[in-house]
Amino acid sequence: MEISVAAAKTNKYAISESGDTLEVVERPNGGVSVVLADGQSSGRGAKAISSMVVRKVIGLLAEGVRDGAAARAASDHLFTERNGKVTACLNILSADLQTGTVVIARNNPTPVFVATHNKIDCLNSESRPIGTSRNIKPAISEIPLESGITIVMYTDGVYNAGDRYGQQLDICTLLDSLIEDQDPPAQIIADTLLNHAIRMDQGRPNDDMSIVVLKVVAQESDQIRRMTVRLPFRATNAMIMRESFPSEDEQSLN
Amino acid sequence: MEISVAAAKTNKYAISESGDTLEVVERPNGGVSVVLADGQSSGRGAKAISSMVVRKVIGLLAEGVRDGAAARAASDHLFTERNGKVTACLNILSADLQTGTVVIARNNPTPVFVATHNKIDCLNSESRPIGTSRNIKPAISEIPLESGITIVMYTDGVYNAGDRYGQQLDICTLLDSLIEDQDPPAQIIADTLLNHAIRMDQGRPNDDMSIVVLKVVAQESDQIRRMTVRLPFRATNAMIMRESFPSEDEQSLN
Repeated sequence: MEISVAAAKTNKYAISESGDTLEVVERPNGGVSVVLADGQSSGRGAKAISSMVVRKVIGLLAEGVRDGAAARAASDHLFTERNGKVTACLNILSADLQTGTVVIARNNPTPVFVATHNKIDCLNSESRPIGTSRNIKPAISEIPLESGITIVMYTDGVYNAGDRYGQQLDICTLLDSLIEDQDPPAQIIADTLLNHAIRMDQGRPNDDMSIVVLKVVAQESDQIRRMTVRLPFRATNAMIMRESFPSEDEQSLN
Repeated sequence: MEISVAAAKTNKYAISESGDTLEVVERPNGGVSVVLADGQSSGRGAKAISSMVVRKVIGLLAEGVRDGAAARAASDHLFTERNGKVTACLNILSADLQTGTVVIARNNPTPVFVATHNKIDCLNSESRPIGTSRNIKPAISEIPLESGITIVMYTDGVYNAGDRYGQQLDICTLLDSLIEDQDPPAQIIADTLLNHAIRMDQGRPNDDMSIVVLKVVAQESDQIRRMTVRLPFRATNAMIMRESFPSEDEQSLN
């Protein structure tokens, strides 16, 4: 069997830095966790919050702390650091090989979708963002880790896509038709959903948007673990100048 | 432009846990870092060491600490934790958008290859693994972040592949022909090199093997960041039983 995790992420239109932070970490007892945080507002301030939260969570998960405890710790940490004045949404999605389950921890009103054989469940139980008070707990769901499941989680930028134009993205129907049609790889699902969300905002995302898709597939071609990261960036003037007129000094190594 | 990072990783034959640890972390001032550690020996003990080292490094990088300082801190941390009795190889490969450079920090005698326009450099200056004494420094190389560069780093399991059979993997020639021929994506380069290494060991890797490839490409299709992780695993008996006879209880969510 193979666990496949894919993420696709874009910034709010005309804002260079995304306020969403997403990291993947290996679980010390086997498996993988994806941590997604969305800091209050957007831009640099939001990024500082979301990356502080994600850093706290991945540090704890890497030490073997359970997901629920890591989410609570991140909430208390944010509460203490920012005096309860700043909030963040936090999702932790783990494929835990020790327990043989997928664990979904939500501190985020935005729903998470779980597609199993022939049905799609929407996890949308009440859930509070972290950081605003003591004793904030995540809403936790645990399902068996088995082939054929697909889990989709995302930030509110995707959930609210099209809001300004009186439209709403129906992730459930879209996901259902995607899986029914061709059962595509996780990255295609993430890309398709993100592209739909961007289109709903007329090509100019109204907020940072991040989508994570976790799939468990039965086939297993080899015992090789793989990871790919693709990070588009705009070349600075200095980089362009350097490409046009490389200096001797810069081309030498050491 | 786009930074593309790909990794491929396999275990020593008949050992369920790899002693190599590899994590990717977003740099707080823009860009991405890959941290690769290879703990002394293999299996569970080596994994504990390498994951401790990587955790330390990614924690510091995420806080904005420079790569060289993070490597030194990891060395001192390992030295303190294990009384200088345990060693680990450590590589940090960063695409730093703030400085517009690629930074390669090696505490690892295994070389790193840097392919730029029409030439391949081999970074193999003397470099000591971390953890055995105070004052261990990484060998640091910094090159301009520009399109067309490909950087390959790997653990000694790849370097020593074929040793038992009197063969040696010529990464430099292999990489040269790969890039010359089709300039393939980073994941294809990583997969091809790893498959060659496994074949050199007659299909039974003599040590944990990890390969990381970082490429900078000129084209940029969209402003979407992407990440994919693929983790093959063997289903436990409990998972197989559950798939054959799902119980009502286990199928419900919450």
